[in-house]
Amino acid sequence: MPKESTVRSPELPENGHEMSRDHPVVVPAQAVPGDTLDHIDTPALVLDLDLFEENLRTLQALAERHGVAVRAHAKAHKCPQVALRQIALGAVGICCQKVSEAVPFVNAGVRDVLITNEVVGGQKLDLLAHLARHAHVMVCADHPTALQALSDTMVVHKASVGVLIEVDVGQKRCGVQTPDHVVELARQVQALPQLVFRGIQAYHGGLQHKRSAQAREHACATVADRVRRVLAALQRAGIECPVVSGGGTGTVAFDVPSGVFTEVQPGSYAFMDTDYAANDWGETVAFRHAVYLLGTVMSTPAPGRAVVDVGLKSASAESGVPTLLDCPDVQAVSISDEHTVLHANDTAILPALGAKVRLLPSHCDPTFNLHDQVVCVRNNKVEALWPVLARGLSR
Amino acid sequence: MPKESTVRSPELPENGHEMSRDHPVVVPAQAVPGDTLDHIDTPALVLDLDLFEENLRTLQALAERHGVAVRAHAKAHKCPQVALRQIALGAVGICCQKVSEAVPFVNAGVRDVLITNEVVGGQKLDLLAHLARHAHVMVCADHPTALQALSDTMVVHKASVGVLIEVDVGQKRCGVQTPDHVVELARQVQALPQLVFRGIQAYHGGLQHKRSAQAREHACATVADRVRRVLAALQRAGIECPVVSGGGTGTVAFDVPSGVFTEVQPGSYAFMDTDYAANDWGETVAFRHAVYLLGTVMSTPAPGRAVVDVGLKSASAESGVPTLLDCPDVQAVSISDEHTVLHANDTAILPALGAKVRLLPSHCDPTFNLHDQVVCVRNNKVEALWPVLARGLSR
Repeated sequence: MPKESTVRSPELPENGHEMSRDHPVVVPAQAVPGDTLDHIDTPALVLDLDLFEENLRTLQALAERHGVAVRAHAKAHKCPQVALRQIALGAVGICCQKVSEAVPFVNAGVRDVLITNEVVGGQKLDLLAHLARHAHVMVCADHPTALQALSDTMVVHKASVGVLIEVDVGQKRCGVQTPDHVVELARQVQALPQLVFRGIQAYHGGLQHKRSAQAREHACATVADRVRRVLAALQRAGIECPVVSGGGTGTVAFDVPSGVFTEVQPGSYAFMDTDYAANDWGETVAFRHAVYLLGTVMSTPAPGRAVVDVGLKSASAESGVPTLLDCPDVQAVSISDEHTVLHANDTAILPALGAKVRLLPSHCDPTFNLHDQVVCVRNNKVEALWPVLARGLSR
Repeated sequence: MPKESTVRSPELPENGHEMSRDHPVVVPAQAVPGDTLDHIDTPALVLDLDLFEENLRTLQALAERHGVAVRAHAKAHKCPQVALRQIALGAVGICCQKVSEAVPFVNAGVRDVLITNEVVGGQKLDLLAHLARHAHVMVCADHPTALQALSDTMVVHKASVGVLIEVDVGQKRCGVQTPDHVVELARQVQALPQLVFRGIQAYHGGLQHKRSAQAREHACATVADRVRRVLAALQRAGIECPVVSGGGTGTVAFDVPSGVFTEVQPGSYAFMDTDYAANDWGETVAFRHAVYLLGTVMSTPAPGRAVVDVGLKSASAESGVPTLLDCPDVQAVSISDEHTVLHANDTAILPALGAKVRLLPSHCDPTFNLHDQVVCVRNNKVEALWPVLARGLSR
């Protein structure tokens, strides 16, 4: 998506320079359909559509075997075209983490959205009400004051939302602490106008990245037990709980067959990254690397060293340096704002100045959030450019 | 900057839901001039204009005392209005790290730009040539093949650029390794059409974050010696070197008086972050925290714990968790995509549900690159919203 500035020049340009007032410089398109990888301007976020669709089918098949719905988490990609493909291949809808994040998805035609988060603040609640007039919307809550404000806003806007009470199943982030508290809030939801109690959310982000499959399996069993205790408390109180939402890419193989979840909400499964790839997947379902950064070697300044034009402004680095593909004896050793440094013991095996290289991101979600578009390829040819319309929408 | 999607619904909406085809949902403005902090929708990147301008004046005074020019690095903020303010207060121009990054600045009227990086690739060189027809442009180089391609492109576009040979002064990233090699490339520049040899770039990013002022001072002396050796070699070769560009926020106090730099290129000095604040500034120039993240407490789920709606999609976290302001006995202990978790031993001192809190970013450059706008305040009232127009422009 070419960006252009419409800010006007505050003064006349100097002699010999063209006017920018009437002819702003425009950043050209990064690629056009039909381009080979060599023609994509870098850094680029590239999605291999065949592998992406294979990942969607892999999860869908697992979920369907157990009668569990897939509600794909759109925080991973922030791209409506990705969500529409997920829905076309069987997802019942999407999750978003923030209210504003959901806006481009609803505008693109997504009709079933769960905000997997507590929503606090007048502007956010107003926007949530607008969305609820365009789509089926559910939202999480863990506090009576927040529920009251949610209901008040929906009354003003003549809108209605479903509510999931978030249960803290061990992550120690948001969510209520005890089954009794869930029952109490569920009763409050039932008593408040324009709110519909739909169920609970039970998600534990920390489990996703436990390296051993056995450790994840054991931890998921503990989560399932906690969910069962909540469901039993709701049943004793005579409160129906049609939705139990949770699970992520790292635990979906255990969450889906657990019998407690009606829907799972993974995001990274569609793309993968090196952090998830470092998990031991054992005999469980596994996903393919479908997304990578394409970079160009911009400097070969010294023996054994090359520098690529992909930095932490194109590949989020809080989970580590990206991993170089295709060059088995060359390592990406460090990353800064706009550079990744490659090392090799043998200069001859380094990619040459100007060569294109592929790097796997360490964390796909915030990496998508750095890019205005994803370059979609099939058989290494550009098929489409998909705008990441929810990029930056964290409100 | 409100975002809206113009992607059309692929199908008719379901019964009971309004059409989004003709009335897309719009994310409302984050704030309007005159708002107090309490009215800014969160997460927000907030710039205190008084402290920002104080930082600009502090550096400008130091530089002017020593007759050194300030060429502010726009990679830190990617915001043309920030650059225009830096130039209004004395900067001779700006640096950009990427060619595309420079586009909105040139369109906004900035007339003197140094690309502090090697530029490799046809699309990037074409764009550089377009920029060079609108502004004085200098670019770095460290390879004969890249210089030839640069000259060839400028010939095609009838444009001209200044060239700085980048010297590796110890960072082990880009840059040539020896004074002889600098001379060789300078001669090549002089021989190539449409290129003008302007001097050298000598920047060492790693030194910026050495914690001890003494260690930074010592390291800067080593850099200055290396620069002197390059200057001597150029002089012996009869090559004039009008520009020596380098230095960053952490070392500017030593680079400016060193006598070797004609201009310094710091970026973070205007904003600061907790990583730079962790430096020992000793008796040297020091800068104030002028930028912070504004967040809202969205959950208070358990004793001693509160959760804020600022995550690593709003505050780049590869240099650590942001630091909470204003609550001396409360710590920000962890960050995930859209959450920061606060801990306190005493629940009573935690900010309440719905309260606004301020967090200092650990690394300001990639944090600006997450935001579409910066909310500018003076005396805690919104004065302006400045679009971060070069956000995401890493090509």
